[in-house]
Amino acid sequence: MLVHTIKEVREKVNEWKKANLTIGLVPTMGALHEGHLSLIKKATSCCDKVVVSAFVNPIQFGINEDFDKYPRTIEQDYKLCTENGVDILFNPSVKEMYGTNEQTNSNNFTYVTPPYFYVDKLCGASRIGHFDGVCTVVLKLFNIVQPNKAFFGQKDAQQAIIIKKMVNDLNVPVEIITCPIIRNSDGLALSSRNQYLSESGKKEALALNKILNNINNCYLKGITDIKALKETAFSFLNSHHELEYLEFFDSEDLSPKNQADSNTRIFIACRVDGIRLIDNIKLGE
Amino acid sequence: MLVHTIKEVREKVNEWKKANLTIGLVPTMGALHEGHLSLIKKATSCCDKVVVSAFVNPIQFGINEDFDKYPRTIEQDYKLCTENGVDILFNPSVKEMYGTNEQTNSNNFTYVTPPYFYVDKLCGASRIGHFDGVCTVVLKLFNIVQPNKAFFGQKDAQQAIIIKKMVNDLNVPVEIITCPIIRNSDGLALSSRNQYLSESGKKEALALNKILNNINNCYLKGITDIKALKETAFSFLNSHHELEYLEFFDSEDLSPKNQADSNTRIFIACRVDGIRLIDNIKLGE
Repeated sequence: MLVHTIKEVREKVNEWKKANLTIGLVPTMGALHEGHLSLIKKATSCCDKVVVSAFVNPIQFGINEDFDKYPRTIEQDYKLCTENGVDILFNPSVKEMYGTNEQTNSNNFTYVTPPYFYVDKLCGASRIGHFDGVCTVVLKLFNIVQPNKAFFGQKDAQQAIIIKKMVNDLNVPVEIITCPIIRNSDGLALSSRNQYLSESGKKEALALNKILNNINNCYLKGITDIKALKETAFSFLNSHHELEYLEFFDSEDLSPKNQADSNTRIFIACRVDGIRLIDNIKLGE
Repeated sequence: MLVHTIKEVREKVNEWKKANLTIGLVPTMGALHEGHLSLIKKATSCCDKVVVSAFVNPIQFGINEDFDKYPRTIEQDYKLCTENGVDILFNPSVKEMYGTNEQTNSNNFTYVTPPYFYVDKLCGASRIGHFDGVCTVVLKLFNIVQPNKAFFGQKDAQQAIIIKKMVNDLNVPVEIITCPIIRNSDGLALSSRNQYLSESGKKEALALNKILNNINNCYLKGITDIKALKETAFSFLNSHHELEYLEFFDSEDLSPKNQADSNTRIFIACRVDGIRLIDNIKLGE
């Protein structure tokens, strides 16, 4: 069932709640790929009813980012949802979500503001306001769908950590379930933004995963010095790559690490022929 | 039933939800008076179950404000709740609500940030961060109690408007019901902070209501010039009073007014012998 209004979602949700059915939510920006499908499969396996939201959320995009050109494939998304047992695909307009087509701002709209400690690093450092936009829309979706469980991909690891922190801080009555990164056969982490890559770009993009795997191998051989581990990355980079960050943080709370250990996650962001890609891996996995 | 933990509230709430009972929430800082009781009576009249929260919320107090000396009268509050048909009086510790006894801040905690347009005036102008703290704790309470309806007093008119805006912006599934100001026989708006006043201070405090009523009478006689209406206040003020603001705003959205009209609310804040009091009135009522 393809639904465009909050009112229609609420009517269904209220029916389900009265029947004591459990509800799963998979928040997405649409352009569904196998990564999203793994979340949907997990959701249908453990919830009575599943809602997928497909909403390209303007308030999490910066001024020079790809909001306008972000892929929108709602017919294909709806087909995939139907085939995979999704009960509602929720595809609201910007006006439905924000009451206006104008960009909202902190002067006229209530925001959810995650803590700086979690936001001032990794993707948050370059994407100012991004995680405020993410938390705000995710809380809105939680309030609209009132899910028992919500499913997020580990690929956006910082996002998953920040949303867990939000749920904990604000006592949101939902369980957050993080699902593993899905990769293509070459190891490239699936992303809707991979569509922007040329064929040669797709090959160059493998560097991200190679860098992470190589660091993990070095760690498994006993190297725990973070500077030494970082330096192993450079042999994988060439003129197609523009490294934004390669950082080591605690996998649970993003606190800094002096030495690599089994609670360490490595995060990478790199432009490949100008396309910004991210990936991450937990050491020892 | 006096409850101190989130877990116990949730257990009761889940029972009630399964039985399709409607839940009313009256958020307070305790020190209950007839104003709170009017909210409680309204709540019990239209909900199957009623939760009153009594929590002096540290994050809505500024550094030099009265957090430590704010009145705490939980035994008396519990007696009043029991007599008035309240099902749960929820009285959590700071640690229960924030996970720590330390003051949280925007570096380590997720906040709800209401729009500047609503916050940079009236009480928000002098109480920096106050409404962030209010919205954050109110959203937490909404998530813990999951009420169908929540009841707020019109005395904190800016607070009620900001909470309605938050609920609307974030799609919180709750109906906000604002109840009229309760006054003593002299016209003084009831407030837990009235306890700070001496006997003579209580007499001087009547100036707030007198100023508002006099402006309303002038308006009913046809005066709509805001400057002229404001000037009528000064005859009620003496050396015991320190006027913080006397402002005219739209009653729904706090937009500025050029002329007084029937959608105008007048807001006053005044220190009486150093005790900060507020009051408000809608013109024509």
